[in-house]
Amino acid sequence: MSDTQNGQNRGASRRAFLRGAAATGVGLAASKAAAEGSDPLITEKQEWAIYTGAGVDETPYGLPIKYEGDVIRRNVPWLTADPISSINFTPIHALDGTITPQGCAFERHHSGAIELKKEDYRLMINGLVDQPLVFTYEDLERFPRVNRTFFLECAANTGMEWAGAQLNGAQFTHGMIHNMEYTGVTLRTLLEEAGLGAAGDLSDKWVYVEGADASSNGRSIPMEKALDDCMIAFKANGEALRMEHGYPVRLVVPGWEGNMWVKWLRRIEVTAQAIESREETSKYTDTLADGTSRKWTWVMDAKSVVTSPSPQSPIKHGKGPLVITGLAWSGRGAITGVDVSIDGGKTWQKARLANEGQSMALTRFYLDTTWNGEEMLLQSRAHDETGYVQPTKAQLREVRGENSVYHNNCIQTWHVKANGEAENVEVSS
Amino acid sequence: MSDTQNGQNRGASRRAFLRGAAATGVGLAASKAAAEGSDPLITEKQEWAIYTGAGVDETPYGLPIKYEGDVIRRNVPWLTADPISSINFTPIHALDGTITPQGCAFERHHSGAIELKKEDYRLMINGLVDQPLVFTYEDLERFPRVNRTFFLECAANTGMEWAGAQLNGAQFTHGMIHNMEYTGVTLRTLLEEAGLGAAGDLSDKWVYVEGADASSNGRSIPMEKALDDCMIAFKANGEALRMEHGYPVRLVVPGWEGNMWVKWLRRIEVTAQAIESREETSKYTDTLADGTSRKWTWVMDAKSVVTSPSPQSPIKHGKGPLVITGLAWSGRGAITGVDVSIDGGKTWQKARLANEGQSMALTRFYLDTTWNGEEMLLQSRAHDETGYVQPTKAQLREVRGENSVYHNNCIQTWHVKANGEAENVEVSS
Repeated sequence: MSDTQNGQNRGASRRAFLRGAAATGVGLAASKAAAEGSDPLITEKQEWAIYTGAGVDETPYGLPIKYEGDVIRRNVPWLTADPISSINFTPIHALDGTITPQGCAFERHHSGAIELKKEDYRLMINGLVDQPLVFTYEDLERFPRVNRTFFLECAANTGMEWAGAQLNGAQFTHGMIHNMEYTGVTLRTLLEEAGLGAAGDLSDKWVYVEGADASSNGRSIPMEKALDDCMIAFKANGEALRMEHGYPVRLVVPGWEGNMWVKWLRRIEVTAQAIESREETSKYTDTLADGTSRKWTWVMDAKSVVTSPSPQSPIKHGKGPLVITGLAWSGRGAITGVDVSIDGGKTWQKARLANEGQSMALTRFYLDTTWNGEEMLLQSRAHDETGYVQPTKAQLREVRGENSVYHNNCIQTWHVKANGEAENVEVSS
Repeated sequence: MSDTQNGQNRGASRRAFLRGAAATGVGLAASKAAAEGSDPLITEKQEWAIYTGAGVDETPYGLPIKYEGDVIRRNVPWLTADPISSINFTPIHALDGTITPQGCAFERHHSGAIELKKEDYRLMINGLVDQPLVFTYEDLERFPRVNRTFFLECAANTGMEWAGAQLNGAQFTHGMIHNMEYTGVTLRTLLEEAGLGAAGDLSDKWVYVEGADASSNGRSIPMEKALDDCMIAFKANGEALRMEHGYPVRLVVPGWEGNMWVKWLRRIEVTAQAIESREETSKYTDTLADGTSRKWTWVMDAKSVVTSPSPQSPIKHGKGPLVITGLAWSGRGAITGVDVSIDGGKTWQKARLANEGQSMALTRFYLDTTWNGEEMLLQSRAHDETGYVQPTKAQLREVRGENSVYHNNCIQTWHVKANGEAENVEVSS
């Protein structure tokens, strides 16, 4: 009953807006036209209501409708030095909910996306194990499977922003992320299959994982994490992994930087110490303000971004009712809350979480508000279950300086202008 | 610790199988070859480990790798009389987890899938409302949004099986279903926007919903359901609805038969009684054993199916460790358990649910077992939170006879032969 009351109260204000008493925009135009019975889209027969549409034979595997042709992965040509473009970004400014469709889910590779048949796939487990083993793809399908939904974020996501606001769109500043439901076997299951007796005390042991591509992209992972929640995944969002996401098998390392989620997973070696490979020494370490570097920064700290309005998703309807929405995530657990500011962080409002935060998965937030048509400095701030609060860029720079590349989880600011357009900016505090 | 023990015990048996002590199959071949150092896929350099793979520029919106070309929607030509093929099926035999990717998610239409631009979209609410309203797509984006994951099942799913085992594959017997995360506005929000004061007592009122396509596919829905959990959805699995799923806007009617989830939603009329439209009189009623018909059978009762092994997903690896998996769902709430039988229903084993059942969404189940190589009559049986147990075909026929089309949620049987191939059969009980 009070629900209905609230609904009707909320409805009343919006009804006024739809009647045109308050706001401008398509909504008003449509509603007035409708009221006057002068909107041909309502009063006239439309061809789609007369003729038969398309059949289904042409689309054994379908693609988005042509009108959504701008919702695609995009890259930043100057970003990587590779001979071929080696990274692109999820169009998060145009998506909603939490699942990322594979077709537009960001990808990053170090030596190209390879075509590896299931029949040619082999996974070796060696090193400090009781019995070195090699698994075919079909072998993997014979072990107990789990289903878990996790975000994958590249350590370099937002990395271009350390020295200042660079890229004008949430897709480019925060689009090195996706969120999928994975199906596979736990890494624990396979390690125990090979037997860990030979490793002795597991507390100081590591696993070294590498891929079948030319880069091999080898990374060291502490045994504790390997046995905790890592997965050998062969499906994402129900279907086989896409080539660019590691088909037929990739490693899933929940909450940790994306480069450790080794694609085309070829080998897992149980070792007595970290390998200190290229990817964890010359790359993927964090430069600090004093010029030294910090290594083993695996976890992606709590972070959030407003996806709409944003530079690629301006306000087109003028003042009045406005839905502000975005994504929040934490590699340390579940998101417990998100605050939104329209004045550059001076004051904050509590956003509504679409659903209860899930550990190490994307959380969608909304702020249902009314825009007065004035400029906004739009920010979001995430809280996770450990009590951690997403920091400002100034707070991060005190420790990290401006020459870092990775792990930039600072609060993002969009300058929304009176005309509804938005721009990537920095605020002093 | 006991986890590790269990893991090692379980591992021990499978390790024996991998060493070749027990079973035949690819797993053995690979492991033996590896042990002998004679598997060129391990001992020789592979081209994918030498040369640079593909870049990302070619795939602004990606498709599955070519090796997965058989994981597609398929139709049954003789099934529908329409001039154009008007239904196809999800390849559930090849999927895992619970999310259905849009690209291979089944579709059914009554007069073709239409191309309707967002700019040309209008939604009218009229009838017993305080203020008739017309919404543009942009208007809808200005109301508070919700995110919910639901299954959609066609009332005719498994309908071809009433008279006996017809179609040889889970895709064809049970593939008129998909499961997606929807983003949109609740129907309650829009009805309260128009104002329900004029409707008076809501307990006996209805809404009549119709689409913008030539069929209009009008259906009557009790006001109680309309205000409970129905959604005006504009996104699925994060992205815009696909054309064949109702772009730009469809109705979501959780747990109820798919034909009520009106696509290209054009109009919602609040009425004093059901309209008794073609789609709810001449169609979508259930013939009973005595020749009469039952109408208003909206809810999809609890149901399940083993997706692998199945006719399109035979056992190729011979005896030994086997993962039996499938899907379960209920339109009345959450799945609380699934039983699996390998002897045609004489004895049952409790399957493992991948995750806790979610209300009116697909639940994935697994039975991690060891196949002795003998024939199986494989079945699954779902239980939901209301205490309802999925019935046998014999039990359903006592009430419905054999001439029905819709709402066949009977237990399915696959005859798995000694060579691992499977076939759609019926068992007497």
